[in-house]
Parts: sequence; structure tokens; C-alpha cells
Amino acid sequence: MHSCEKFLAVGSGMEPAKIHRQEDVFRRVKNFRLRKRVYLQYNSEWNDYLPSFTYMRDNWRHDMSMYIVCLDLEGVLVPEIWIAFAKESGIPELTRTTRDEPDYDKLMNWRLGILREHGLGLKEIQETISKIDPLPGAKEFLDKLRRMTQVIIISDTFTQFAGPLMEKLGLPTIFCNSLEVAPDGEITGFKMRVKESKLTTVKALQSIGYETIAAGDSHNDLAMIQAGKAGFLFKSTEQIKKDYPQIPAYETYEELFDALKEAIER
Amino acid sequence: MHSCEKFLAVGSGMEPAKIHRQEDVFRRVKNFRLRKRVYLQYNSEWNDYLPSFTYMRDNWRHDMSMYIVCLDLEGVLVPEIWIAFAKESGIPELTRTTRDEPDYDKLMNWRLGILREHGLGLKEIQETISKIDPLPGAKEFLDKLRRMTQVIIISDTFTQFAGPLMEKLGLPTIFCNSLEVAPDGEITGFKMRVKESKLTTVKALQSIGYETIAAGDSHNDLAMIQAGKAGFLFKSTEQIKKDYPQIPAYETYEELFDALKEAIER
Repeated sequence: MHSCEKFLAVGSGMEPAKIHRQEDVFRRVKNFRLRKRVYLQYNSEWNDYLPSFTYMRDNWRHDMSMYIVCLDLEGVLVPEIWIAFAKESGIPELTRTTRDEPDYDKLMNWRLGILREHGLGLKEIQETISKIDPLPGAKEFLDKLRRMTQVIIISDTFTQFAGPLMEKLGLPTIFCNSLEVAPDGEITGFKMRVKESKLTTVKALQSIGYETIAAGDSHNDLAMIQAGKAGFLFKSTEQIKKDYPQIPAYETYEELFDALKEAIER
Repeated sequence: MHSCEKFLAVGSGMEPAKIHRQEDVFRRVKNFRLRKRVYLQYNSEWNDYLPSFTYMRDNWRHDMSMYIVCLDLEGVLVPEIWIAFAKESGIPELTRTTRDEPDYDKLMNWRLGILREHGLGLKEIQETISKIDPLPGAKEFLDKLRRMTQVIIISDTFTQFAGPLMEKLGLPTIFCNSLEVAPDGEITGFKMRVKESKLTTVKALQSIGYETIAAGDSHNDLAMIQAGKAGFLFKSTEQIKKDYPQIPAYETYEELFDALKEAIER
């Protein structure tokens, strides 16, 4: 039986006569592919690569370029901004989170009220935020990752808050929300970019030909983590890790980088 | 007449009794907005800001955050890669472009054939590309722009070719196509990310709450240039500038930066 025919047989559901070494399979299929454009599909049941007659997408081992890694910001690359801000500015009530006030709109309006009371405009807030540092190792992790693949930070924070931190992270691309700022610097409101922004964003990226791989630490990251080709919890809570045992969870940038690399290469 | 009522009158089409200074208008509408969420719309006929009762999108002057600037790569930030590659590698026939072979698929397959003939795999190609420099001033322009707003490079080149140039440009985000590379480094084919990639990509970005502003130099940039809130030709040909007199055209990064800034702020 000619090797092409053997692969056709395999693709049609027959068990392969013998399990080839991976390189062996690649060489054979590569030769065949030149004529027939057949691609490999990983079959976990057989623990081997099998030809697929659909257009090659994510299984060609050295094709790392059709991926976007989508990362959460707060808790993953930088500290929780409001908590760090409360500490830096000496306004402890700003540590209030959605755990205390589940309605995000109410919480944000309350926060903006506190800022106004303390006479803090955008300039003062950005000066305070510029004292906050990314988590140790975050920039090195991000630099390494951005050399391997495309990375977009998707966050529920506001561009104006994220700005000073993006500077320290080497100006990565961030998709987030925005504050409405009056000409005198007063923050008059806020604007959420899109509903369910993390999920909506990864879906939009998928619609233009990308596979997404996501990592985040909290509830609002779960949708994007589960919507992509792979997804990971990073520095998450014990409760979330317990509730989602199927999502691999990591605590160090080394572990996360290796998992992302493996997901891209496999 | 109370100032709020005056604005309502103006919004409903009445000519304003007098033209306010811009700051004046902002202060009044800001006060009003706190209760009614009315936003300003620029009326070019009256050369003034008038209230708009639709949700504030692009006219709040200090809201710079809901924009993504989409830039072409070749000819705008770096030289034409195939032409520079032909020169660096000493293979003059690789200067052949879509002007000589309008079918892009045919052209690319022909180019890959030439690379194979010369025994050039991905490693050799990337070594050659790493000798190519971005256009003078491109990195400084991009750094400044990325501090002001989000930037994504949208290109028809291939990630693997762009890699060494992205490194020199400070690792900006790039959406482009990808090469199929065999384990031994041989380029066996190429994969276009999505059809009409530039237009499709700006549309996807718009669908997740962004206004896009684009700049490019050639025919394949025209769709994205014209699909966004603003768009510019940059270092384009005389013919394109003549055929599209309605698109502002610039030759220096300073001019382009000022035009982008103005588009974001207006």
C-alpha cells in the first residue's frame, strides 16, 4: 500500500497498521501534502497525528503565528489597581470591591464620588498610579511572550489608569474601558467598551483568523479562558481553582510561559 | 432661558443665539450632562460644538481611549520586505511584485520556489531580514503614538518575516499572515489569515467598541483607510494620491502623527 493511500485509509477512520514516530509521520505527510494538501490532525485516542482533509489550522507544529495570547491585567501582570491606589493615596475606603458592591456601575460611581471628594482629578490619579509597579517578573515574561507570539491585554480597567503601568511593561497593546474626563481633568464618568468585553473580544479575534489562548485570575476571565484553544488560571483564588478543576492553574510566570508555549506548539 | 433649555433648543435645530467660546460650551454642557447625559456633537456648518442626544462616542475631546490606529507595515514603517530581501540576499528576481504577477497566490508560490532553489529556509531568511532596518524615524513615531493610543499594525506580510523587524520597532502588535514551515525549516506554503484582511480586521475592531483610524501607502490599504473615523495616505504613490484626492496624504512622521492626534482629539 502506497503511503498516501495508507494515510487516506487512516483519515477515513481505519486504525493505522503501526504507530509512526512523529517525525516519520511529518515527513510522509509533507511529501504527500505537496500534491494533495492534506494536513495533520492530532487524534488523542490514538495519541498520534493523523491526516485531516480540512484546511490546516492549528496542528502544524511550527506554525506559531495564528495565535493571540489574551491576558488579564490586574492580578496577572500588575497588582489590583484600586487596592494599590487606595494604599498609595491613603484613601482606604477605595479598597471596596465588587465583593462588597456587586453592581459594578454603582461601585464605579461611588468610587468616582470619593475621588471628587478628595479633589483628585486624572492628573493626580495618574501620578499616584505611576508609583505602582508591575508584579515582579511581569515585564520579562511579557517581553519573552511577545517575541514568541502576539499578545493583547484585555482588562476591565480604564485606559487612563492603565497608561502608567503600560509604560513600565514596555507598551504592550491593551483593550480596556475608558474614563470620561472633562477639560479640567475631572473624571465625570466612565464608558464600558463593549458588553462582556473579554469574551466579545476573543470572539472578534477568532473571527479574523486567530486562535486565542487566554490566562486570568478571576471570575470575569473564565469566559475568555474557556472560549479559546487553551486557557489557564494564573495566581487565582483557591475557590476558583476548586470550582474549575478542569482549567490548569499556575502560580509562576515560568509555568505559565511553558504552558502557553506548549499550547501554541502542540 | 436656562442654559440647559438653550442647549435643548440648539440640539433640536435652532441656530444658537450667540456662538459661545468652546470652553464655555464645555462647562455648560458638562453641568447639564450630569443630569441628562447629553453629549456634544461638532457641527462644522456652525463651527461649534452642539449637544447630541445619542450616546457619546467620538466627540468628547479628552476621550482618547476608544481608538485604535491601524498602520500598514511595508512602505510605512519598514521598507518593502521582498525588495529589501532581494537586495540583501543578492537574488534580484525576488523584486517581482504584484505589478508583474497580479495573482498573489501564483506570485507567492513562485517566490517560495526561488527560495527553495537557493536553499533558503526560514532561518536563513530571518537572518537576512534581521539586516533590514525600519525606515528612519519609524520607531520614534511608533513609540510616541503607542503612548497616546492603541496601535495595531495590519499587514499582508508573514509573521515570520516581520519578526526581526518587530524586534527593532519595540515589539508592537502586528496582525498578518503566516508561513507554513516544516520541522527542518523549509517553507512549504503560506496561509492567509482572513480574506480582505485589512478591512475585515478594522471591522472586527469596530465591532468591539473601537473607532479605527488607519494609514497606509498602497491599494490594499484603501479599504481600511476609508472604513474608519479617519484615514490617511502615507508615503504613497503619485497615482494613488491623484486618484484619491479626498484622503489626506503625508510624507513625514511628524505630519502623520499630528494628523492622527488631531483625528483622535476632535
